[in-house]
Amino acid sequence: MDVLKQRIVRDGVALGTEILKVDSFLNHRIDVGLLAEIGAEFRRRFSDVAGEVDKILTVEASGIAVAAFAARSFDDVPVVFAKKAQPSTMDDEYFFSEIMSFTKRQMTAIRIAKKFLAAGDRCLVIDDFLAHGQAALGLLHIARQAGAEVLGAGFVIEKGFQGGGAKLREKGVRVESLAVVREIKDGQITFE
Amino acid sequence: MDVLKQRIVRDGVALGTEILKVDSFLNHRIDVGLLAEIGAEFRRRFSDVAGEVDKILTVEASGIAVAAFAARSFDDVPVVFAKKAQPSTMDDEYFFSEIMSFTKRQMTAIRIAKKFLAAGDRCLVIDDFLAHGQAALGLLHIARQAGAEVLGAGFVIEKGFQGGGAKLREKGVRVESLAVVREIKDGQITFE
Repeated sequence: MDVLKQRIVRDGVALGTEILKVDSFLNHRIDVGLLAEIGAEFRRRFSDVAGEVDKILTVEASGIAVAAFAARSFDDVPVVFAKKAQPSTMDDEYFFSEIMSFTKRQMTAIRIAKKFLAAGDRCLVIDDFLAHGQAALGLLHIARQAGAEVLGAGFVIEKGFQGGGAKLREKGVRVESLAVVREIKDGQITFE
Repeated sequence: MDVLKQRIVRDGVALGTEILKVDSFLNHRIDVGLLAEIGAEFRRRFSDVAGEVDKILTVEASGIAVAAFAARSFDDVPVVFAKKAQPSTMDDEYFFSEIMSFTKRQMTAIRIAKKFLAAGDRCLVIDDFLAHGQAALGLLHIARQAGAEVLGAGFVIEKGFQGGGAKLREKGVRVESLAVVREIKDGQITFE
């Protein structure tokens, strides 16, 4: 997606060899016009299964806006976002998965209320970043617990060198990343 | 906003006298069609200042989708969402505010990177809930540090009996709430 890659080159900040900051348009300050284009692009990438998608799964917080705009392009299917914090009221039952946050160097539990994910639901996983794949693998784990089907996983930016994409594809998951970064080095970003 | 109130009555869950759960359409599972209508309604409520809005401020996580759809209705102005977790890289400077979470019974720091909020910026605060007003007061505090102007604050649901609306209005903030709940009692929800 050229407009996205151009934006990453213009406004992204490459730190060291691992970190690509896109907080000026994606995950702190949000360019909603770009997000609407991103949502439409996900629809194009998954056009062959678009009519089968029942819901879109993501993880709070930075996945929410991306998933919500994607959902608009998939005929307003509902978004369900996995939560990270402990529930304030424990009146619901949840599916849980433990994921490792490499940036924060700690384990986090994500959860989705059982009432919002049913056996047979056909889902797309949508998130802002695919890095080590932990968030996406956690969502797959939760979908498996629910008996839901994952039709594919879409990411705005995949850091191809951190292995998450390989892990998902090994599991047979169809991955569509709108920009795949091959290398971050000396402040430069190289795409696949 | 009648369609919203009807949805709250149909799908909201009243717990005790304080808690109104709307996680089936607003803050866990998201109905994006309804959110687009909500965004358009905020535009109508603030139509007299719509041309002056530079950006929309909210707090992660559940404010993000609401703010993003509102931004679409305000000619795609950017959204800036305050973050709660500690930054993984401390290369940026932040405005901070400490807010009390009554549901979690603990203080939380929210922060916005200084580069995303400038003196003279004219902002709308948009959030899903106005309860005790802590998140909104935190955003006002951050806007004041930045020298930014808050043109108004819009909420999907105001729990009128928890005092947040009164606090904001006392400070001279224009508040637009799309549904104001007067009372939660015996599983029933009464609107103003």
